[in-house]
Amino acid sequence: MSTLNQLGVVKRRIDRADPAAVAHLSRFGVATIHEAMGRVGLLQPYMRPVYQGARCCGTAITVLLQPGDNWMMHVAAEQLQPGDVVVAACTADNSDGFFGDLLATSFQARGARGLIIDGGVRDVDELEKMAFPVFSKAISAKGTIKATPGSVNIPVICAGALVNPGDVVIADTDGVVVVPAAIAQQVADAAQAREDNEAAKRAQLAAGVLGLDMYKMREPLAAAGLRYID
Amino acid sequence: MSTLNQLGVVKRRIDRADPAAVAHLSRFGVATIHEAMGRVGLLQPYMRPVYQGARCCGTAITVLLQPGDNWMMHVAAEQLQPGDVVVAACTADNSDGFFGDLLATSFQARGARGLIIDGGVRDVDELEKMAFPVFSKAISAKGTIKATPGSVNIPVICAGALVNPGDVVIADTDGVVVVPAAIAQQVADAAQAREDNEAAKRAQLAAGVLGLDMYKMREPLAAAGLRYID
Amino acid sequence: MSTLNQLGVVKRRIDRADPAAVAHLSRFGVATIHEAMGRVGLLQPYMRPVYQGARCCGTAITVLLQPGDNWMMHVAAEQLQPGDVVVAACTADNSDGFFGDLLATSFQARGARGLIIDGGVRDVDELEKMAFPVFSKAISAKGTIKATPGSVNIPVICAGALVNPGDVVIADTDGVVVVPAAIAQQVADAAQAREDNEAAKRAQLAAGVLGLDMYKMREPLAAAGLRYID
Amino acid sequence: MSTLNQLGVVKRRIDRADPAAVAHLSRFGVATIHEAMGRVGLLQPYMRPVYQGARCCGTAITVLLQPGDNWMMHVAAEQLQPGDVVVAACTADNSDGFFGDLLATSFQARGARGLIIDGGVRDVDELEKMAFPVFSKAISAKGTIKATPGSVNIPVICAGALVNPGDVVIADTDGVVVVPAAIAQQVADAAQAREDNEAAKRAQLAAGVLGLDMYKMREPLAAAGLRYID
Amino acid sequence: MSTLNQLGVVKRRIDRADPAAVAHLSRFGVATIHEAMGRVGLLQPYMRPVYQGARCCGTAITVLLQPGDNWMMHVAAEQLQPGDVVVAACTADNSDGFFGDLLATSFQARGARGLIIDGGVRDVDELEKMAFPVFSKAISAKGTIKATPGSVNIPVICAGALVNPGDVVIADTDGVVVVPAAIAQQVADAAQAREDNEAAKRAQLAAGVLGLDMYKMREPLAAAGLRYID
Amino acid sequence: MSTLNQLGVVKRRIDRADPAAVAHLSRFGVATIHEAMGRVGLLQPYMRPVYQGARCCGTAITVLLQPGDNWMMHVAAEQLQPGDVVVAACTADNSDGFFGDLLATSFQARGARGLIIDGGVRDVDELEKMAFPVFSKAISAKGTIKATPGSVNIPVICAGALVNPGDVVIADTDGVVVVPAAIAQQVADAAQAREDNEAAKRAQLAAGVLGLDMYKMREPLAAAGLRYID
Repeated sequence: MSTLNQLGVVKRRIDRADPAAVAHLSRFGVATIHEAMGRVGLLQPYMRPVYQGARCCGTAITVLLQPGDNWMMHVAAEQLQPGDVVVAACTADNSDGFFGDLLATSFQARGARGLIIDGGVRDVDELEKMAFPVFSKAISAKGTIKATPGSVNIPVICAGALVNPGDVVIADTDGVVVVPAAIAQQVADAAQAREDNEAAKRAQLAAGVLGLDMYKMREPLAAAGLRYID
Repeated sequence: MSTLNQLGVVKRRIDRADPAAVAHLSRFGVATIHEAMGRVGLLQPYMRPVYQGARCCGTAITVLLQPGDNWMMHVAAEQLQPGDVVVAACTADNSDGFFGDLLATSFQARGARGLIIDGGVRDVDELEKMAFPVFSKAISAKGTIKATPGSVNIPVICAGALVNPGDVVIADTDGVVVVPAAIAQQVADAAQAREDNEAAKRAQLAAGVLGLDMYKMREPLAAAGLRYID
Repeated sequence: MSTLNQLGVVKRRIDRADPAAVAHLSRFGVATIHEAMGRVGLLQPYMRPVYQGARCCGTAITVLLQPGDNWMMHVAAEQLQPGDVVVAACTADNSDGFFGDLLATSFQARGARGLIIDGGVRDVDELEKMAFPVFSKAISAKGTIKATPGSVNIPVICAGALVNPGDVVIADTDGVVVVPAAIAQQVADAAQAREDNEAAKRAQLAAGVLGLDMYKMREPLAAAGLRYID
Repeated sequence: MSTLNQLGVVKRRIDRADPAAVAHLSRFGVATIHEAMGRVGLLQPYMRPVYQGARCCGTAITVLLQPGDNWMMHVAAEQLQPGDVVVAACTADNSDGFFGDLLATSFQARGARGLIIDGGVRDVDELEKMAFPVFSKAISAKGTIKATPGSVNIPVICAGALVNPGDVVIADTDGVVVVPAAIAQQVADAAQAREDNEAAKRAQLAAGVLGLDMYKMREPLAAAGLRYID
Repeated sequence: MSTLNQLGVVKRRIDRADPAAVAHLSRFGVATIHEAMGRVGLLQPYMRPVYQGARCCGTAITVLLQPGDNWMMHVAAEQLQPGDVVVAACTADNSDGFFGDLLATSFQARGARGLIIDGGVRDVDELEKMAFPVFSKAISAKGTIKATPGSVNIPVICAGALVNPGDVVIADTDGVVVVPAAIAQQVADAAQAREDNEAAKRAQLAAGVLGLDMYKMREPLAAAGLRYID
Repeated sequence: MSTLNQLGVVKRRIDRADPAAVAHLSRFGVATIHEAMGRVGLLQPYMRPVYQGARCCGTAITVLLQPGDNWMMHVAAEQLQPGDVVVAACTADNSDGFFGDLLATSFQARGARGLIIDGGVRDVDELEKMAFPVFSKAISAKGTIKATPGSVNIPVICAGALVNPGDVVIADTDGVVVVPAAIAQQVADAAQAREDNEAAKRAQLAAGVLGLDMYKMREPLAAAGLRYID
């Protein structure tokens, strides 16, 4: 059994979420999925796309980095399968550029769909040209060394969220969310239901109906003590 | 009389700034208006547009939110009139996504021109497609609950600036500024004068004239002790 | 001799880096140059372009500002020669808008290629229209006064990096780097060598070769204790 | 009438809160007063005492400073009366040391009871020896200039709270709160009631009674959907 | 089975770490335990004691709070057993004062040894007088409401670390660390070994022996390329 | 010649400031010295003492660290002479605990007077017991590795200030300031003059004389446009 944040270990066999569930989840936005899952699994909002319009959905290969050291990114490349998204945490707060266009070329050649990294990246213009989506907490031209082992495919805490290898990771302009592999299809179904339901609400609101009436909020608001004055 | 930050109150009748003055102000940038008003009324610079090119100008509907709770946004929708901009403050520092595409649909249907919120928003891609301008301190997919009343149309302090309902709010790439309703036309006139004045200066500077000469700074600089060395 | 952070001084004669070296350096990205120089000279990553795609390379005119006071920017304008980039530090942490479209018009008329400022700027939409690249730590509509002398063309520490007048400054989406004038050509050569070298690596990685093999990392990783499990 | 954030003005006559109400308020902690006032008037929590155990209560003399400039502190000194607390805001985010032991000597000689400043201070060891309480957002040895007028005794927004001259300001380890002069006695009475009420609750809780029972929370918790599992 | 961050649940039966192991761990500092555990389990360093000298060690009762809402703290009180430490996470970044002297009285009466909270607290002077140790990310007088259920005794991520109910939590001036219940004794033994080992090293270093020699670093440093110049 | 931020180098021979000048400087506070030097050389105000009352003055041994790696601290220990203060910069933003009681024991045995580190430290209670003053930007129990060389006794930029080996470093509750070795005596003299001058001013202010009169500010304030109203 892999352990949270253990150092010096690469787990080769992981259980990836069902591809059909991943495909289904890829149709929804992060906000919808986060709601559908009961508002858990969201990474902290400082994680932002490094270029406009970046978006990705795939199964997590997890990486635990040491500050200023990107050795494990190369180790992770070998574990990648088409459809994976790399999720990299770091043992310390660090904004160095752990990732650039060379690693992106390698990841893309292996079929990776994107990178989520609680650290910095560089070569951002090239990443955009390659259409390789990256979500990070910083952009920094500062390179890193290759001196100390971290781990690959152990459970990690990335930007405040627990990510297990094989989980589904979805990222778009609104942020990054993690769906445990075991409930991927269930969350996709709930997201679908939510989206179906929202279409009707949107139409009503667009027609000028107030949320106060559509959601029947007037009575509970009065009960909660809200009063209107002139 | 409404009081700063009072909880549980919705004021229905507010005095909006003169529409002609609002229209006049809408022609100027935030930096020009801030200068024209004597450098007061600017919200803190962490308030940023959620998509590139967002811009808005209108009369303020104010909202005081509780952290993690967007109930009052629905209450505010009913108070909106065409030409209004919603200005939302929060009783605590909080980056949750208080606002998304459903509320934007409702606000837009009621004629709102935009949202200024000292908190987070989500569905940012949809907001851009709808051309509904939003300025916020964060983007977050995390939704909010509807459990505790705040207030609507009371004076609020939003991102360090006092905003009264009916004030004119102007927001663009440079930031967000608030003009008290009573002096809206006067500020628009001053902004116009400033802009007329800048055109001439711009032409001189473009021709290579130095600000040192155009503004006659050489003597005061010498008096202040500046010295040139080789 | 000019001294670090001395106040009230304008140095008129500075030694600019060799124009051929500057031209050579302008062909490379910031990350490549930073690597080629041995990973020194990078400004802190909070320095960001104020509009998408901003990029510049030139010789530094340095400015030391007082907080909330942009008087020295006008003094700097006179010292500008075509090909210069203004690098502005401040004696205190301050996000005011020290620079806008009027100063940009003046700088551009004098041949400046851009501005790096450890403070705020405004009129960002106009700067983009003018194609005048600016890298700053903030955007703020708040203007500044002209009351207290700072200095021009003294050594300054800007966003954590020492900048001497005449040094080469390169800025792009990845950040801002400073190359001492005396080693500009040497760094350009090293950057060229690095870029040549990267093309071959990129081709291999794109073909699916792993960095583990290309960089011969498997043995050192094992020596460092990394172990694979299933 | 004084206006929010107006520059270049000193108001000599202000209406101070009733001394008896101030004396009454001085007996309570900031948390109690904030509750008693309906949870408004609290400065942001980054305002901290500069030495352990600092505490003060008095009537506000307000100051609007320019960044890096403490000229107005000397102007404020003349407006001080025994029992006043100086509340200093700044037109920009700035952490310079606007205040040190000389100004503290002057303020103390005029009867001031403390300083609340949305900026930096220095000579902190001396301030502690003098028992002159200061609450600030920073400690910095960096001095300031005396070049540009701000204002004294106009309404200011200090650390996110509106402060009018004459309001009561109370500061302790928990933070800083402002009570409008007009309601000072009313708030003191409410604080007294709250404190009387808390003594009984504290005794029950100390005896092991649960808040769940004392506040009768079990039913509303169940109604809100809380469920117990083993 | 309890799930990470699930809302609306109170788990009554949890497996607490062995009391002997807890007692053993309580003899060591946080830095020693963190090393002994292989450098995992540390909360982020923004978690600080609210008064000087605070220190605690006990078994975790976990709480998941909603922003601005401390209802679950009262629910947690009932689950406390002597020797427990409450570990409170929040579904959003929030610095409100979730905890004060009344709740501390209740917790202390139930035998709690301290509180770790990724949020704010108040009544700090009283907490110190009561000798009730609290580690938080903020101090704020702002109170909270009781409106929305969170959870008690589910796994939570607090300040970047995963905490399961029953884990051992140790906090002192250096920070806060979590030891999984299952390895508590093993970590205590490793901490003991480490401390025994350090005494000998300390004596050597105090006698002037260099770490370079004691740790035999000279050769690896030379191998890594370090060179001495005059 | 040593170069700014060069990696892999230890300079053995450095020119320390004159011991008499260091002794003289040690009598003054940081704020006084910073003023006496013309307001240059101050480290950023996020550098704080790790225990109350810490204070030190000595000649700088400089260290350039890699993030998460404290190997160079051991190398620095050998270069220490009695009266030195270690000044440690890092190639990246990093809050790890690079320094604890073992290294402090070693440094103290070698005669070091303190540590200034733009990173984190641990064993803070022990440091206080040992009376070994440390000024840092963070406290963190997280240890570091010993894998990659940095440098010792090269010029470094520490918390925004340039420090050359041999410079005088003074740190107290107000912050940290660096005095170049070459001007140490001159700055000490200026500090003495300033302190002598302040005694007289303090007496006047304590007697109730206003700064407005003592500094003759009334006329320049009026000239700057300040006006008094009632």
